[in-house]
Amino acid sequence: MTAPPRPLAQRTQDTRRRLDEDVDAWVATADRAGTPYLVPLSFLWDGETLLISTAAGNPTARNLRADGRVRLTIGPTRDVVLIEGSAVVVAGIPAGITDGITDGITDEVADAFATKTGFDPREQRNHPYFRIRPVLIQAWREANEIAGRDLMVDGEWLT
Amino acid sequence: MTAPPRPLAQRTQDTRRRLDEDVDAWVATADRAGTPYLVPLSFLWDGETLLISTAAGNPTARNLRADGRVRLTIGPTRDVVLIEGSAVVVAGIPAGITDGITDGITDEVADAFATKTGFDPREQRNHPYFRIRPVLIQAWREANEIAGRDLMVDGEWLT
Repeated sequence: MTAPPRPLAQRTQDTRRRLDEDVDAWVATADRAGTPYLVPLSFLWDGETLLISTAAGNPTARNLRADGRVRLTIGPTRDVVLIEGSAVVVAGIPAGITDGITDGITDEVADAFATKTGFDPREQRNHPYFRIRPVLIQAWREANEIAGRDLMVDGEWLT
Repeated sequence: MTAPPRPLAQRTQDTRRRLDEDVDAWVATADRAGTPYLVPLSFLWDGETLLISTAAGNPTARNLRADGRVRLTIGPTRDVVLIEGSAVVVAGIPAGITDGITDGITDEVADAFATKTGFDPREQRNHPYFRIRPVLIQAWREANEIAGRDLMVDGEWLT
């Protein structure tokens, strides 16, 4: 039986919970020749952006460095959270340095990433972090939720 | 606790079961400008190829027509089946026509697709079928299964 479609406020609440609590995303990127790539990666959501990390030599990292566009999903195929955004590579910030930092990963954030995902890129060679800023967020469960699936458009939550 | 890595034969058996029984896949494509696209689509596996269908105007259909390369996954992020392949659009075959057909969808296959997925593209306007032939199939659960994840290479099962 199909449940009635959730109103926007409920979908937004459910989606924010998934962003906070889910560990893995399917991350789709492409190279300049239009070769699609898709892998599961763990992420940390800070309320505005998703943080991921993968080996610098992997296609996902190469694609994101060349062209930050990314499309990723969280949740199963019948409880979809779909995100389009753009990614930038972010560096670690040495302890004690706080002035003039416009973008980077503090130790606190890196610790939170490792705790949530069970994987600490700082212990690996050449595992950069990427910060993904959503531009579009959609959520739907069944066909009756295709209408009204937009939760964020042009980087702005609709609520 | 992490289970010991499955041997190839077990992974192949588990993967064939997912191909037979799972209903949805995450389907990643890209356009010529390198724009990644990713959607959930239902599929039917016939033992050699996956059949999917989507509206002709959707990015997935446009991307597959322009460049059949596709990467898709079945199963959750901790029980991954990952498939690379190429897709061709296939037409329906009118009842009674059997001579000279090299590729197409018979009514029997279309019925099987509708029964499995709960969705019949024949009842929709402009919903072509696409047949995806895998070239690479990988399967892994946790990090200890990354080694040995190849089940099919260059279109050939390794067993």
